[in-house]
Amino acid sequence: MDLTEIPINEEKVFTGRLLDVRKYTVKLPNGKESTREIVVHPGAVAMLPVEDDYVYLVEQYRFPISQTLLEVPAGKFDEPGEEPLECGKRELEEEIGKTAEKWIYLGYIHTTPGFSNEVIHLYLVKDLKTTQTNPDEDEFLEIKKIKIKEFEKMILENKITDAKTIACYSRAKLLGEI
Amino acid sequence: MDLTEIPINEEKVFTGRLLDVRKYTVKLPNGKESTREIVVHPGAVAMLPVEDDYVYLVEQYRFPISQTLLEVPAGKFDEPGEEPLECGKRELEEEIGKTAEKWIYLGYIHTTPGFSNEVIHLYLVKDLKTTQTNPDEDEFLEIKKIKIKEFEKMILENKITDAKTIACYSRAKLLGEI
Repeated sequence: MDLTEIPINEEKVFTGRLLDVRKYTVKLPNGKESTREIVVHPGAVAMLPVEDDYVYLVEQYRFPISQTLLEVPAGKFDEPGEEPLECGKRELEEEIGKTAEKWIYLGYIHTTPGFSNEVIHLYLVKDLKTTQTNPDEDEFLEIKKIKIKEFEKMILENKITDAKTIACYSRAKLLGEI
Repeated sequence: MDLTEIPINEEKVFTGRLLDVRKYTVKLPNGKESTREIVVHPGAVAMLPVEDDYVYLVEQYRFPISQTLLEVPAGKFDEPGEEPLECGKRELEEEIGKTAEKWIYLGYIHTTPGFSNEVIHLYLVKDLKTTQTNPDEDEFLEIKKIKIKEFEKMILENKITDAKTIACYSRAKLLGEI
C-alpha cells in the first residue's frame, strides 16, 4: 500500500528566533483530508569524541525540560545544506575546545519524525587536539570527561537520556569503535 | 556554576491540533535576558516487542520528513500524567494487535531537549499474544517482523534512523535482554 500523504495546502503559523512552525492540509492514503503541524528544522550534527578509554560530553541546562542534561557535543547547521563535516568541526571546537583528526560517520537519526523534520548527523571523532572553547554567547556548558564503561552504565541506568547521545553510542558500539 | 535559566514571561504563540508552541523570556546564568521557544508535548511511550529471535516494528509515512520510517510501536499519552504502562498497553494493541505478559522498563529519553519537552518512556515487551490491530482513524501502518540480527544490521547501516527505536535497542542490549 502507498502510504504517502500529499500536501495540498501550507500555512506558516509561527516564525520565531528558533522555531519555524507550519500547518499543512494533506490528502491521506484513503483519500480523506487531515492536518499536519510540523516544526521545520535546519538539521544538526552531533559527535562522540573518544580519547583512550574516555568520552567527552557536555552538560548544559535545557530550558524545555527545566534541567541540565549530559549530551554529546552538537550544534545546528548555520544554514540548510551546510556540509555536516564542516558544521561538526565548528561545533566540536566551540563546545569542547578540540579539533579531531579522525571523523568516522555514523549515519543520521530522525529525532521526532511525528512532528519535526529534524535530522542529526552523527560522528565518532578521535585523535583529538586541544585548541580553546569558543561557546556561543547564550550558551553555558560544562565539559565532562567520562570513562567509556561509566558512559555505558549511565545510558543503561537512565542517567543519560538524550536521544542523539544514545544513538552515537549505539552505532559506535555496533561498529566496534568503542 | 548554576546553569538554571529562569522564566520571567510566557506567551502561547501557537495552539494547534497537535502542537502547543510557547515563547519564554528567560534570565540567563549571566543575568542577561534571552528568549526560548519550545514545543510542549504530552509525553509518549515506545516499546520493542521481542518474540524468539524476532522484533516487531511498524512502517509508517512520516509527513514531516516526506518518507516512511521503520519504528518501534509507540504512541502519545492521552493526557499528561497518564501511566506509561497503561499508554504502552493501549498503543501496542492498537499498532501491532498484540498484548504482552512481560513489560521490562528501559527508562526514558529526551528526543529534542533543545526545543521540546518530549519524553518517551521505553519498554521491552515479551510473551506476546495476538488480539487484533485497532489503528487510529488517521493512522496507516504496516507491521514488520524482523530478525534481531537484521534489526542490528539495519541500525548500523542507517536503514533504521528513528531515535526512539535505536534507544530501545541500545538499552535492551546493554541490559542483556536481546
